[in-house]
Parts: sequence; C-alpha cells; structure tokens
Amino acid sequence: MSSDFETELGKEAEMDVSAFRDADDRINPLWIERLRAFIEGHRAEDVAMVMEPLHTSDVGDVLEHLEHDERLALVRILGDKFDYSALTEVDESIRIELMEALPNAEIARGVANLDSDDAVAILEDLGKEDQNEILSALPTFERLSLKRSLDFPEKSAGRRMQTEFIAIPPFWTVGQMIDYLRAERDLPDEFFQIYVVDAGYKVLGTVPLDRVLRSQRAVKIESIMNTSLVLIEASEDQEEAARAFERYDLIEVGVVDDSGRLVGVLTIDDMVDVITEEADEDIKLLAGVGDEDLSDTTIDTVRSRVPWLVINLITAVLVSLVIGLFNGTIEHMVELAVLMPIVASMGGNAGAQTMTVTVRAIAMRELEGGRLRRLIRREMVVGFANGVIFAILIGIITWLRYGNEGLGAVIALAMITNLVVAGTAGILIPLTLNRLKADPAIASAVFVTTVTDVVGFFAFLGIAGLWFGLF
Amino acid sequence: MSSDFETELGKEAEMDVSAFRDADDRINPLWIERLRAFIEGHRAEDVAMVMEPLHTSDVGDVLEHLEHDERLALVRILGDKFDYSALTEVDESIRIELMEALPNAEIARGVANLDSDDAVAILEDLGKEDQNEILSALPTFERLSLKRSLDFPEKSAGRRMQTEFIAIPPFWTVGQMIDYLRAERDLPDEFFQIYVVDAGYKVLGTVPLDRVLRSQRAVKIESIMNTSLVLIEASEDQEEAARAFERYDLIEVGVVDDSGRLVGVLTIDDMVDVITEEADEDIKLLAGVGDEDLSDTTIDTVRSRVPWLVINLITAVLVSLVIGLFNGTIEHMVELAVLMPIVASMGGNAGAQTMTVTVRAIAMRELEGGRLRRLIRREMVVGFANGVIFAILIGIITWLRYGNEGLGAVIALAMITNLVVAGTAGILIPLTLNRLKADPAIASAVFVTTVTDVVGFFAFLGIAGLWFGLF
Repeated sequence: MSSDFETELGKEAEMDVSAFRDADDRINPLWIERLRAFIEGHRAEDVAMVMEPLHTSDVGDVLEHLEHDERLALVRILGDKFDYSALTEVDESIRIELMEALPNAEIARGVANLDSDDAVAILEDLGKEDQNEILSALPTFERLSLKRSLDFPEKSAGRRMQTEFIAIPPFWTVGQMIDYLRAERDLPDEFFQIYVVDAGYKVLGTVPLDRVLRSQRAVKIESIMNTSLVLIEASEDQEEAARAFERYDLIEVGVVDDSGRLVGVLTIDDMVDVITEEADEDIKLLAGVGDEDLSDTTIDTVRSRVPWLVINLITAVLVSLVIGLFNGTIEHMVELAVLMPIVASMGGNAGAQTMTVTVRAIAMRELEGGRLRRLIRREMVVGFANGVIFAILIGIITWLRYGNEGLGAVIALAMITNLVVAGTAGILIPLTLNRLKADPAIASAVFVTTVTDVVGFFAFLGIAGLWFGLF
Repeated sequence: MSSDFETELGKEAEMDVSAFRDADDRINPLWIERLRAFIEGHRAEDVAMVMEPLHTSDVGDVLEHLEHDERLALVRILGDKFDYSALTEVDESIRIELMEALPNAEIARGVANLDSDDAVAILEDLGKEDQNEILSALPTFERLSLKRSLDFPEKSAGRRMQTEFIAIPPFWTVGQMIDYLRAERDLPDEFFQIYVVDAGYKVLGTVPLDRVLRSQRAVKIESIMNTSLVLIEASEDQEEAARAFERYDLIEVGVVDDSGRLVGVLTIDDMVDVITEEADEDIKLLAGVGDEDLSDTTIDTVRSRVPWLVINLITAVLVSLVIGLFNGTIEHMVELAVLMPIVASMGGNAGAQTMTVTVRAIAMRELEGGRLRRLIRREMVVGFANGVIFAILIGIITWLRYGNEGLGAVIALAMITNLVVAGTAGILIPLTLNRLKADPAIASAVFVTTVTDVVGFFAFLGIAGLWFGLF
C-alpha cells in the first residue's frame, strides 16, 4: 500500500488531488472528481492505479459516493482487481443494487477469495436461486462451509462467524506449533488465538498468540492454554455474542455447534459492527424510524416511515377525542385551549427522559434484581420532584399572565399529575414490552406520549372544569 | 479461574447457589444473597473464595448490585485480593463513592499493579490533591507514565492509552525477537502487535503476532512489517480514534506525541467502550437526558434533567403564546381547539424521524459531498409525500367527524405545510448546529419540536381563520 493510506489522524496536509482524505479526514472531492473522469473516459489503468492503494473500507466509501451507473462502471472496469470485501462496507441497498446488476458467475469469482464471513455477508441478501447458482460455482470446501453458515438464522453467531481457524491437539509443544504455522500455507488471513481441540473438535482450551511467543519451545500447549472458556453457540443471537465480547473484553471467540464441535470463530471487528448497528437501531426505533439506510430511495423511505406516522395519527386522533369531551368547558374559557398543550408537552418530555434511560438499561442488560427496584423507586421520586418544581413555575407564570390565581392552581395540579404519570409510564411501558418479549425501543415512545398526552389534556381540562364549575 | 466463569452462552444449567450467572446469563440472586451473608458475617475467607473465580467485569457487576455500605465492606474484606481494575467496570458514581471512602494509601497500593490505562481511568475522576497524594506513593516509572497520561485532555487518546508496549529495532530477526519475548519478564499483560521503531521511538512499522509466528527465525523484522501505518495522536479525541478502529478493523494502534514519538497503544476493547458510550450519549441527548448513570442518586438525576425541562417549558409557553394569537378564532369555533394538537403532533413525529436520521448520519461521518445533497433532496420529497398522504387521511377523517368539508380542507392544508416544514427543519437544524460546532444530538430535538409546534398551530389556526373569515 502506498502513502495515500497513511491516515495519520489530525496531521495537516495540503489539499491535493492525489490524497484520498483531507486533513479533517473527509473524503477529498477532487479525488472523487478525478475518479469520475477516469471512469467516464474508460481509462481502466488509471482507475486501477488510484483505487489500488485504498483500504477496503475506503473502497466502500467510494462506492457510496458514486451514483448508481458510476458504481457499476467502476466494478466492471476494475474487473479482477475489484475486492469484493468492499461490498461488506456499503449500505445494504447499494450492495443489493450492485449484486442484481452483476452476473452470478462474476460474483462467484469475486467471493471465492474472501474470508467466509465476508462471503456470507454478501450472499445472504440474495434470493435463494441466485445464492444456489453462485454456491454451485465455488470449490466444494468453500461451498459447504458457506452453505453451513447460510443455514444458520439471520443475525446469529453462525451467520457472522468466520470458518477459518487454527486448531491443534493439546499434546503438541510450543515448538511443534510454531513449526506447523511456519510450514502451513493455508492459514487464515489473520488470527489472534489458537484453539486446542480433542479428536472430536471439542474445544479444550485457547492460547493467545502473545502467550505462545513468551513460552519456550519445549513447553506443552496444554500447560499454557486458557481453560476458562467463553464459547458462543452458533444459533445464539449476534447481539448476545457482542455482549459477551463487551463484558469480557474478548478479541476472538470460538463458535460451537449443538454438539459442542468448534465450527468457526467470531472476531471483535465484526462485533464492533454489531454493537454499532444495534445502538443505531435503538436510536432510530425510538424516533419511529425503522431499518433504514442513508442510501435508501425516496419511495423506500416513505414506505418505511408511513406506518409509524399512521400509528401516531391514530393516537393523535384519540387524544383529540379526549379533548372533544371538554368542548363545553373550552367554549366557556378559551384560555384553557391556549394553555393545554403546555401540560401535555412537559409530560411528553419527562416521559421520554425516563423511557430512554429505561430502554437503554434494558438493552445494556443493566436491570437485574436490586438495580431494577432502585430505578423504579428513583424515577417515581424524580417524577414527583420535577412535578412540584414545574407546577410552581407554570402556576406562577399562568397567574401573572392571566391575573387568575385559580387558573394557576389548576395548571399546577395538572402538571404534578402528568409528571408523576410520565415517570411511571416511562419506566413501566418499556419494562412491560420487554417482559412480553417485544423490543422496548420500538413501541415505547408511542405508548408513553399517548399516555402523557391523554393524561395531560384530561387532567388539565378536567381539573379546570371542576375548579370553575364548568360542567 | 474455576468453572463459575464458564459462561458458555445459552447452555442450560440448573439454578444453583454456586453459579454466578443463570442459564439466561443473568446474575443469580441466590449467589448475591450468599455473598451478602458472608459480608455481614465478616467471613473473609468465604468472601474471598466466592469472589476469586469471577472475571473483573463480573466483580464490577457484583459491586453495582450491592448497596453502598456492602460495597465498601466487600472491598475492605477482600483487602489485597480486591482487583482494582473492577472499578473501571462500574458506573462513575459508584467509583467516585468508593474512592472517597477508601484511604489514599490503599488506593495507591491497588492501582500500582494495574495496566496504566486502568489506573488512569480510576484516578482521573479524583480531585487534583488526592491524585497527587496517590501518585507520590507510586514507584517513579509508574508515577511518570500515569502523570503523562493524566496531563492529556479528558476523552483524548492519550488519556485512554496503555503505556505498556513492545518496541524493537528494524534490524532484528524474527528469532531474536522471539528470544527477547521469551527472556523478558516485564512484558505487557496482553499484546497483539509489535512496534518497530528507530532510535528516537519514531514508528517505522508494526508486525501483527500471527505474522511473526508464520515467519522463519532468520527473517528480518523490517521485511515483514506493515508500513502502511495508522497512528493516532495522543491529543486526538477518543471518538476520532474509535472511528479509525471501526473504519480499518483495527485491533491495536500506536499513539504518538507531538513529535511523532510512540508513547502508548490503544486496544480495541477500550474502543468498544468508547463506541458504546458515544452511542449511548447520542440516544440520551436526543431525549434530553444528559451525562447520567443508572446508579446516580435521585438528587443528581433531578439536577441533570431539570435544565432540559426548563427549556421545554420555555418553548411550550412560546407555543402557547402563538395559540393565544388566535383566541378569538377558537372562541368562534371550538372544534379548532380539539383538532389543533393533531397537526402539531404529526409534525413533531415526522420531524423527529428526519432529525434522527440526520443526527446519526452526522455522528457516523456519513454525510460528505454528494451524499448530503442526496439526503436533503430525499427528505424534502419524503416530507411532501407524507404531507399529501396524511393530508388526505386527516382531511377525510375530519370531514366525516364534523360533517364539515371546509374544516377537512383546512386541516389537510395545515398538515401538508407542517410535514414539509418538519422535513426541512429535521435536516437543516442538526446540520446548522454541526456547522456551528455544537453537538447536533443535544439541541436538535428542542428546536425541531418548537418549529413543528409553532408552525403546526399557526398554520392550522391561521388557515382556519382565513377560510372561515374569523379574523
């Protein structure tokens, strides 16, 4: 690799057409323009020359920067020189678009050289028919190991794992192992530990590479191996696997099948992607955005957002029906219509605060036993304390604004009520959804705001009606 | 470590007081109860026996499960056997609480054996005076290296780095290096690559351990080292460093000072924590929750949430002033008060969707050049399309509900207006905040809902006033 890739972060650099990233680590638009010109001019050698030094992840960024036709032209011009693993670094919609445009034979050639986990990531989005056509064009060993990975459920450890690993018997010495590694040509591209297995491929222990390097040649492997094993079952959800990596600061972990046989390994770089994806998913679900990519088309985006807005419309109409109950009250005292959104809005915000803390605590598996009780108790008290604080504030503001201390008292009472309800709903709704095995990030926000809106308007208009005898 | 730590995920296990985690990977309440009993009975040997097999991260979980006094008692009972690195695994508030309760001399003894990054993580929360007292009790070498890390700004790569690493000259052979590693006692606990440096500690290249193991003894290090280097400057923000790990699938990276001298290394496990923290922060900021831990006290929680609610109160009062402009209009037609929250609520939701997508894209550095233009164009069209869809829906619902087609037309027009504004505000507000070097996650939500509320009420009541001639 050449100096284009020398991304020494924060280093000052001049704006130069040949630098892929500028000093702020952004992609250089001049570089992209030059590539565009090369592609348009069908200058295959120039395209290959500027693409060659790029890291796979940067190749992915280039693809995301280009327009549809340019992407396809780039892949075609590069031909054999296009590294298919770059497809694991782009948005799903771009990957699918490219895969549909490329002939299956070409895809088969491209994935044949990849690590199994990258090949699976590319193939899993395809239809069964295309998958089979591509698989049948691969050598037997690759075909079988990819097939096995693809047979595991989506988002499972088995789907994410890499099937290349190094397994040795426990009676070898360090010296034997080093000689083996020096002689063997067919090793994984990268590895961080060695698996010690019995004849049935059951894992007996693991040896991190640094421990191998510290040990004398005569030392027996079994005497230096880790036996306190963390192993992941292939059918396990990838999110569970990622939590294990986070909790135990793992770099690489063995994946076993139902019978405890070692079938692959997960590495931390894949888990980083899982952790980022899951956090991203939570953020988006909380805001009513589904499984959406930045590269999605307008139609796909509308299609994914409309359902959430329909649900919101239904709850908004429901809330409006509640307000409709107080038609007469409002007619007698139009100030109520002017003030009523304040109570609902404050409740919505306070509820969202508690809900977000709860949803995150559930996602991070932080709520067990005593911690859950403590959180519930705290949020109730916080709801009440905030209720009192903001009741006093809005009570005084309203009194001064309308010169009507009764109206101030009414809005203050409604505020306390709604903030206590907000705290309660903010914690109980996600907990209930979680207990019902639903993802609390998905629906909590809708339920919580519905509750705080309904209670906000009902409490304010109801208390007002009682106070001023308007019923 | 014993079998207690054999967390083979998903494996069925019986509920047994001696198992720390149950089959679902939750902490076993019986185990905690037994520990509590041992602590209360001052049974030091039993406490040590049950704690000994636990992984550091599990020790952290135990601390989080206990009450304040029990925590302190546990640390005291364990004495020398308490592994201070567990303090890096607990919420900040618990760490600070324990550090304040423990004598500085004891803390100094505890951090002396830690990797420098863990020691820094524990010391950085303390006051300057306590820090200096503890540092002065440490051996010179440790003191100087911790001092240097603490001198780097909070959340910088220099703060997070580990100062233990292996650096060798380029002219060594693989054999010489292996002999060195076998002979040297003072190696880092764990390492994944070797740094090749010149006499001034400038990094010339890196060698991953698997490459060392594949190479013959006679091979020169400089002939197998990676020279396409990713290095991080110590003053760089930890988030930038984490992005580099994510982008280039790194496991370990060298940290250099201003003069390019290698001063430490960052490893992926620390970066996983950074990535998780940053995502968590974004989620919480979007919901108006600041830098808050699950273990924070009620008072701290109220204190951290009140400012956000005050801002919301101000905007809610502002919105109510806008409604107040239409006092007369509402008085003439009380249905307007009943319907008006629908338009505002839909705008708020649609705005939140666009805003969340934009905030995440900014955080993930996905918006550059062409992609930004494409996103803006898409969100405008999506806003208009959703506007039309929901204008028709709510128009028909309103017409049927009140038998008044004029009211249906008014709410439909207001809906289109507000959803287009929501899409525009949802993308422009975070982009503007980002350009002003403010964190778009912090304030976007408040601004966006204020805009959609004001426009929602103003458009609906204003159009209604014009349509029905109520001004």
